[in-house]
Amino acid sequence: MNSKQSNRRRFLKDGAVLAGLAVGAMSTTGAKALAAEADIKLKDIKIHAYGERSRFVTSERPAASMDMGEGGGGGYGFMGRTPVYSTPLQDLLGTITPASLHFVESHGYDPPDIDPSGHRLMIHGMVNRPLIFTMEELKRLPSISRIHLLECQANGRNQGDRKSDTLIETTGRTSCTEWTGVPLPLLLKEAGVHKDASWIVSEGLDGSKYTKSLPLAKATEDVIVAYGQNGEPLRPENGFPLRLIVPGFEGLNNVKWLRRIKVVDELYLARLEVSRYMNYSDPKARYFNFEMGPKSVITRPAGGQKLAGPGFYQITGLAWSGGGAIKKVEVSTDGGSTWKDAEITGPVHRIAHTRFGLAWKWNGEETVLMSRCTDDVGQVQPTIAEYAKFWGFTVQDLQNGKNGFGHFNAIQPWKISQDRSVHNAIFS
Amino acid sequence: MNSKQSNRRRFLKDGAVLAGLAVGAMSTTGAKALAAEADIKLKDIKIHAYGERSRFVTSERPAASMDMGEGGGGGYGFMGRTPVYSTPLQDLLGTITPASLHFVESHGYDPPDIDPSGHRLMIHGMVNRPLIFTMEELKRLPSISRIHLLECQANGRNQGDRKSDTLIETTGRTSCTEWTGVPLPLLLKEAGVHKDASWIVSEGLDGSKYTKSLPLAKATEDVIVAYGQNGEPLRPENGFPLRLIVPGFEGLNNVKWLRRIKVVDELYLARLEVSRYMNYSDPKARYFNFEMGPKSVITRPAGGQKLAGPGFYQITGLAWSGGGAIKKVEVSTDGGSTWKDAEITGPVHRIAHTRFGLAWKWNGEETVLMSRCTDDVGQVQPTIAEYAKFWGFTVQDLQNGKNGFGHFNAIQPWKISQDRSVHNAIFS
Repeated sequence: MNSKQSNRRRFLKDGAVLAGLAVGAMSTTGAKALAAEADIKLKDIKIHAYGERSRFVTSERPAASMDMGEGGGGGYGFMGRTPVYSTPLQDLLGTITPASLHFVESHGYDPPDIDPSGHRLMIHGMVNRPLIFTMEELKRLPSISRIHLLECQANGRNQGDRKSDTLIETTGRTSCTEWTGVPLPLLLKEAGVHKDASWIVSEGLDGSKYTKSLPLAKATEDVIVAYGQNGEPLRPENGFPLRLIVPGFEGLNNVKWLRRIKVVDELYLARLEVSRYMNYSDPKARYFNFEMGPKSVITRPAGGQKLAGPGFYQITGLAWSGGGAIKKVEVSTDGGSTWKDAEITGPVHRIAHTRFGLAWKWNGEETVLMSRCTDDVGQVQPTIAEYAKFWGFTVQDLQNGKNGFGHFNAIQPWKISQDRSVHNAIFS
Repeated sequence: MNSKQSNRRRFLKDGAVLAGLAVGAMSTTGAKALAAEADIKLKDIKIHAYGERSRFVTSERPAASMDMGEGGGGGYGFMGRTPVYSTPLQDLLGTITPASLHFVESHGYDPPDIDPSGHRLMIHGMVNRPLIFTMEELKRLPSISRIHLLECQANGRNQGDRKSDTLIETTGRTSCTEWTGVPLPLLLKEAGVHKDASWIVSEGLDGSKYTKSLPLAKATEDVIVAYGQNGEPLRPENGFPLRLIVPGFEGLNNVKWLRRIKVVDELYLARLEVSRYMNYSDPKARYFNFEMGPKSVITRPAGGQKLAGPGFYQITGLAWSGGGAIKKVEVSTDGGSTWKDAEITGPVHRIAHTRFGLAWKWNGEETVLMSRCTDDVGQVQPTIAEYAKFWGFTVQDLQNGKNGFGHFNAIQPWKISQDRSVHNAIFS
């Protein structure tokens, strides 16, 4: 018996497979609803040359004002001007984030309205052959496409400040799309990097000429000078027409509206690097923390949602790591006492959102759901206590909003109450 | 020496890598352009809660009237009402098609404006437990996410009729997105399929109640009852709120606006199956041809485009197969005399668009570019002569528009002329 026959035999063995499935049973009400819908005179809707959503689909990325930190503005000089737009993870299906819902943080300025025909990229500094490219020239060069997440280093940082209760508040500053562009190593090779160079400094064309240093070792590894996102040109707020993609590193390294890359032999200590993104408070004096750790979150049921009632639910969520591909996700439905391996239900890519699921029957009693991931370099997502200890805080500090530098990647607990509501169990 | 050190040593060995690169060299003009752009007072643009494109990005899916075949209308009864919207493959970057640019064919009706709160899916016929689901109930069930292409069986069919010259005309009826939904095998298992059942018949809620038969063997293999596309709910023209995804099969099997699945023991010979999609002309009497063959096309340079002049170009394109994953793509730059392995430059998934690239230096002389793919079940994309012979035609028939039933997957030749224009070499 071949494997297809075997599958077929197993399939034909009758028996409902979803224990406790409280949905789908044929009823008079259901049959009437089905018949009624077919009878409705459906209105045709227009097909657009560039398609639009159904009017019944209304997901948005809400704007929240950026946390300026102690001292108000903290060296920005533009306090209050920068809203953060978060991805509504609770609405996402699968692993790809639509470009229209990608999270946005821009350090003080709205996206510039750049005409790509006038845009240039300069590569200069410690190189043998300084180069300037038009967009058309870049598009003639070899390109690669990679599905990668971006995550703000402050994603989850402000749980304590705000007593964040919903999924989008705790975790909405991450998104995952397919990026297309020229490998930066190819451009640097073409320019001819001096042997004693050790950093690059990238500059954007936003109002602040946002500037960021990056170790040359990473720049010559897997960085992309990207012009494409999910099959089309970058969106304005995601860096149109050109940006860096620095896989696995804090979002702030992925310089948008990229216009210059200078090859240098030292860290440049640009304004925001010094005023905002050095970690003075780290007891181990790790001034910069580039790579994002392994992280996962249950997106349904999650904070801010309400269950329909006891019965069958597929728990689902996203896992990712700045260090590699997700290898395993475990889920606990009893506050961490026991764990089960979740199923990986979608494509798996290196440094990308990975969708997981686990069948669960809710008995109507209060409980806490958690997820924990492991990546393919062996990193395991930490507990809140482990996370706090690693960065030199206590869990109480965290609850009080003193959780320091960010990089929040602790296990996120969601409390299901008897009233069917779901809340952030860090505070409730 | 470890591999990272080795990479670094290779990297530092100086020398331009792109032979014949005629772009990027630093010039006074380039430097002035770079400086000028920074001096421009850039207008900030608004960030939308649901993002929009840059005003400089204008890709669209053009509408063409559907070929009604000999006899005009051929049993449709709605001649002239069905435009086909093709994907602008020439503009796509990477492997994902934005939902807004997914090709659309709907057999005579515009998309219905369905309120998901009233929508139902019924599974009935030869089952032990007929089921009716609301959308909310379906979303509580286990889901999977898969990146798959769809392709109309008529994609490329009409080359001869129209002397199709541009890429979008020859090949634009294919797109690739991530689909999320409930595995159909799970739903059928839950319903309990009778042992003597052999087909399913699916029905949509469009104006025509579009109906299509599918062998039960496929329905219980890898079919998805999908509600998600690229991370968000389906778009109206792609089936909102529910559709079938039948991986690798002709597009017409992927029933949109899905409302009923009936399990039966025979082919139902529904209207369009009989009037349009049975292949009477196939000399081997294969009345139905479900699976799409291995296919590839160079998307740049391609028909309708114009090269900037002699020099370096990255040839790029897409390859796919209804039978599995793409294993190899070869490219010829001399009309098929010699072939080189192209590089796979993006993610590889089963039954999905796969991006390939090959560095090429154009010497300015007339030549013909071609690509040829092989999938992981060993199928090789045919030549035009092989394709014509397989379906019982001659190359001359094809050129004259008599290429029968579709499933066009022959090697697509693009002629580069000395005037830098690119044309379909089947006709020019």
